[in-house]
Amino acid sequence: MFQMIKNVLTPQEILEVRQIASRVKFVDGKATNPHSHAKNNLQMDIGQPEAQRASQIAGAAMARNETFQNFVFPKRIASPLLCRYDKEMNYGSHADSPVIPLPNGPLRSDVSGTLFIADPASYEGGELTVHLGTEVLRIKGEPGSMIVYPSTTLHEVAPVTSGQRLVFITFIESTIADPASRELLFTLNEVHALEGLKMDWQNRTRLQYVIANLHRNWMS
Amino acid sequence: MFQMIKNVLTPQEILEVRQIASRVKFVDGKATNPHSHAKNNLQMDIGQPEAQRASQIAGAAMARNETFQNFVFPKRIASPLLCRYDKEMNYGSHADSPVIPLPNGPLRSDVSGTLFIADPASYEGGELTVHLGTEVLRIKGEPGSMIVYPSTTLHEVAPVTSGQRLVFITFIESTIADPASRELLFTLNEVHALEGLKMDWQNRTRLQYVIANLHRNWMS
Amino acid sequence: MFQMIKNVLTPQEILEVRQIASRVKFVDGKATNPHSHAKNNLQMDIGQPEAQRASQIAGAAMARNETFQNFVFPKRIASPLLCRYDKEMNYGSHADSPVIPLPNGPLRSDVSGTLFIADPASYEGGELTVHLGTEVLRIKGEPGSMIVYPSTTLHEVAPVTSGQRLVFITFIESTIADPASRELLFTLNEVHALEGLKMDWQNRTRLQYVIANLHRNWMS
Amino acid sequence: MFQMIKNVLTPQEILEVRQIASRVKFVDGKATNPHSHAKNNLQMDIGQPEAQRASQIAGAAMARNETFQNFVFPKRIASPLLCRYDKEMNYGSHADSPVIPLPNGPLRSDVSGTLFIADPASYEGGELTVHLGTEVLRIKGEPGSMIVYPSTTLHEVAPVTSGQRLVFITFIESTIADPASRELLFTLNEVHALEGLKMDWQNRTRLQYVIANLHRNWMS
Amino acid sequence: MFQMIKNVLTPQEILEVRQIASRVKFVDGKATNPHSHAKNNLQMDIGQPEAQRASQIAGAAMARNETFQNFVFPKRIASPLLCRYDKEMNYGSHADSPVIPLPNGPLRSDVSGTLFIADPASYEGGELTVHLGTEVLRIKGEPGSMIVYPSTTLHEVAPVTSGQRLVFITFIESTIADPASRELLFTLNEVHALEGLKMDWQNRTRLQYVIANLHRNWMS
Amino acid sequence: MFQMIKNVLTPQEILEVRQIASRVKFVDGKATNPHSHAKNNLQMDIGQPEAQRASQIAGAAMARNETFQNFVFPKRIASPLLCRYDKEMNYGSHADSPVIPLPNGPLRSDVSGTLFIADPASYEGGELTVHLGTEVLRIKGEPGSMIVYPSTTLHEVAPVTSGQRLVFITFIESTIADPASRELLFTLNEVHALEGLKMDWQNRTRLQYVIANLHRNWMS
Repeated sequence: MFQMIKNVLTPQEILEVRQIASRVKFVDGKATNPHSHAKNNLQMDIGQPEAQRASQIAGAAMARNETFQNFVFPKRIASPLLCRYDKEMNYGSHADSPVIPLPNGPLRSDVSGTLFIADPASYEGGELTVHLGTEVLRIKGEPGSMIVYPSTTLHEVAPVTSGQRLVFITFIESTIADPASRELLFTLNEVHALEGLKMDWQNRTRLQYVIANLHRNWMS
Repeated sequence: MFQMIKNVLTPQEILEVRQIASRVKFVDGKATNPHSHAKNNLQMDIGQPEAQRASQIAGAAMARNETFQNFVFPKRIASPLLCRYDKEMNYGSHADSPVIPLPNGPLRSDVSGTLFIADPASYEGGELTVHLGTEVLRIKGEPGSMIVYPSTTLHEVAPVTSGQRLVFITFIESTIADPASRELLFTLNEVHALEGLKMDWQNRTRLQYVIANLHRNWMS
Repeated sequence: MFQMIKNVLTPQEILEVRQIASRVKFVDGKATNPHSHAKNNLQMDIGQPEAQRASQIAGAAMARNETFQNFVFPKRIASPLLCRYDKEMNYGSHADSPVIPLPNGPLRSDVSGTLFIADPASYEGGELTVHLGTEVLRIKGEPGSMIVYPSTTLHEVAPVTSGQRLVFITFIESTIADPASRELLFTLNEVHALEGLKMDWQNRTRLQYVIANLHRNWMS
Repeated sequence: MFQMIKNVLTPQEILEVRQIASRVKFVDGKATNPHSHAKNNLQMDIGQPEAQRASQIAGAAMARNETFQNFVFPKRIASPLLCRYDKEMNYGSHADSPVIPLPNGPLRSDVSGTLFIADPASYEGGELTVHLGTEVLRIKGEPGSMIVYPSTTLHEVAPVTSGQRLVFITFIESTIADPASRELLFTLNEVHALEGLKMDWQNRTRLQYVIANLHRNWMS
Repeated sequence: MFQMIKNVLTPQEILEVRQIASRVKFVDGKATNPHSHAKNNLQMDIGQPEAQRASQIAGAAMARNETFQNFVFPKRIASPLLCRYDKEMNYGSHADSPVIPLPNGPLRSDVSGTLFIADPASYEGGELTVHLGTEVLRIKGEPGSMIVYPSTTLHEVAPVTSGQRLVFITFIESTIADPASRELLFTLNEVHALEGLKMDWQNRTRLQYVIANLHRNWMS
Repeated sequence: MFQMIKNVLTPQEILEVRQIASRVKFVDGKATNPHSHAKNNLQMDIGQPEAQRASQIAGAAMARNETFQNFVFPKRIASPLLCRYDKEMNYGSHADSPVIPLPNGPLRSDVSGTLFIADPASYEGGELTVHLGTEVLRIKGEPGSMIVYPSTTLHEVAPVTSGQRLVFITFIESTIADPASRELLFTLNEVHALEGLKMDWQNRTRLQYVIANLHRNWMS
């Protein structure tokens, strides 16, 4: 399931990230995927202090966002990485790697996230393009919005035909590995949050009982 | 989970079953469990037409009972068998057989059921006694009531110390094999039935969506 | 996963179905979903011989279509039903029922299918609209094409704003219940079909070995 | 499954805990469940050194108890918390939270435990009351005894009608998440412990082989 | 797991099968696997009445064999087929097809079986050769013996270098799909059969309880 | 599945280990399995610095071996232990313990490994003997070779009848607990490595997509 979360970053934070992006050095995206034939983009050189500041801004924004927490059930989050697609850059169709090596041990990528920084009006092309069999989703978000979706999909970034696409990407290991279970639990929690107080308390308790046991069964 | 369902049989049907029970021949319960050391009761000789009539009454009552259907999700039901415990009879601690040979192929016993015919005031002892580790449930039902519970438990019928215990027993293969899943789905369906119309329709639809997918995932 | 399968019906068959549709009686779609608040369409009255002929044409077309068979792994297919959406008709957001009662026993709906009869240029609106969280797929097919997709999604048919939408719908129980597993097996079978003969035979055999065991593990 | 474990605490330890309970400050139970409408009891203010001493006594007693270890297969144990129910206090029907936030990361509550401190003769009411569908277990233990049971149940503490109920409660994450699997493994280990030496060694080895593989399959 | 079952056929039956084999027509094994590059053997033309008689002898022998029943938990058995490997014939490395089309619906091949007819002293080569990664099992049975093993393995029949290899092969769908579970249940049932009567009856009952619930959990 | 990995140790390392083995003290193998009736061998006393050096050599060799990594998907590896079987020593049939207590928490033994040090020509008997039902694998490796196999098997070390068997043993917790899944993933990765570059890139991407999702689904 796909969740576009609005206003993950404040306007102030978007501004700060853009300023950092204008100053830091970007390197070939193949730096972290040397064997990729599909990757044709730029990514922040993470050795720089300002680059680390950018990642921290994005990471802190996810940590405080309630919808993100409720939808993703995060266990561990890879440090968000600022990526840039200049004109004619793209990232061909690929499956995200199931295991991301991190300093504190490998992370299983359950959820992928793209946090949009550039204004969609400022660049053409560059849609996050998700292949669902023969059908296709094309996604472009407002600055500060974040799309989170299962890492299990085949997807690509369409070629940028004008302007510059600037986004953070990240990968999250969820406490609920199966995407379908994760989405059912999110939905049932929403029903409880929005309707629980209308219910007779015995039925609200029974709904909480079902939610608690589904959560227990599915988490690891 | 344990569900005592009231009024599965009508007073009329209870009467008819008692009359049949007073006329038909009962045989040693070991007839169907020759290797059992625990079984010490009597059961209707099912070759007699009246015995078959009794089984049909009980079977039809389960088929029309909504709570039974909602709780058990029955796929196949073994023909209910009338059992009698005279004074000093009992059925020692045992696990129900996982596979019941039936004419149309083996049935996996997921749910066990006892449909009470004798008045609990008319006999002493004879409680259905379920061992849940070190704790114990003792169950005695009103005439026409039926207790349905997972066939996975260790249970016994305590010795009858006076009077006569008369019950139907049956075994059911469920479309939802796992007892914990079956109970969560029953509970969520109840919440929907009792609270659905109070909800905003979008949320009611989302609850239906969760129920449909849990049902799909768990049924076979 | 979504699979648009082209040319399931021949031009001749499309013509015949349209002729039948112009003659048979349609009834309120609530006939088969009396409690639905969302359903606002018409469906063929299936008692008529010509209606049965239409269903047979569609059913036979699915049975002979190789892509359909390879993608769906069908166990049982509900008889396709011709549905009509006149101007202002729609089918609001809903989850398909997990269990469809059929004469020969209940069918678990794993896969839903829409087989398009009307020319998409002949009506406006009426898109099959699938909600994937906050993102949306809108699907409209060529005459004779069929979209098959998991019954697990929340979806709707958008209001028809001009013309008439004519489609068959059907539900399929798959031998592979889990949609994600079904899609991985389909994909791996495609890789084998397209690339197998380029491989060294030992590796082709090893690929077949993996495919056979995944198929075995996932089917029921 | 329910396991009442005797003599988890020694008489000396029971005495020490009672003395601490008479001196430490208790606060409203809602301190740790601010949104609960059901909780109406008191719990030790855990900031006090004596409160921590009490928790340590209880925690050490569980760690050394062989039956506890064999039945629960503990991975992590939340620090036991001393709770007091004065006259008219109770804890209404509820499901335990599936996730308990702890300093070293969230704990999945698989098993709930109540370690009894007050003498059952010294208070009326206050039974741990577990709802198993329509049937009910009522549990009251001797001082120093501990009942452990699946956190998956709906349960309550009945109102205390006289005297004072004093217990520790705790939550345990098990290496074997599924309660039914946990109980089968406990039971098979008991059979091995009690009967293994009577067996021919080849059969004892085969039993160990089954136990080892079930344990492996079920643990995480 | 691999189980060599002795004396599935009586000497009389072996003789009868050999006589049939000397009279019936054999056809190229590719008849039932037209796309196979690996299969290089002969199989009985099943249209002949004597061929059907041979299959019936083998099928009846499996049906009455207790070890076969206890090890395989058969749901459906494909009609045994007599196969012949003359000098220089073989069946290269392959995985058995997961689905065998049968008149009464597709059969999932969980267990493969080879019932030996020729005397192993009468032919050289022709070992059933099972690849378990880099290690190899080579299996040749006495006349009337049957090896049953998971259909999940990669295996071959080594070239016959002299004499003639004559065997029945068959495929079985088990009520317990997972080979590891099937083997644990077989083993635990054996422990119960061989050691149950030495146990205290409470422990024997507990062992039966574990067996019943494992069987229930694993069967479909 | 069984994988014999060649040249895990270099000739230099084999020499160094043999020299260490000739100097360090060995103790009765029951030191770590005090209740074992089957174990009759010697193992390095691990308190000695040279013993730790030997373990480090073996551990480092596994860490750098690509086949080992690809086949085992190791999460944690128990420190390899040098074991010696002098004449008439053996280790009777047993199942490896499912849980190995280690300083940093219990390890689930998914994979067992034996790294051969002695030349197979220098001792008779001492085969690693794996029971697969009624069939048996007998394994003896070249110096520096390592056999890795599921810890789920029943196995033994046959009595040494002359010379001295010198091996390291170790136990590994895998990120992929199920041995059958682990083997399918290993095989599919091999097919990709050996055949991927021959494929059209779309199909190679689809194969990577399947591999990534199987890996994700199966790892923990």
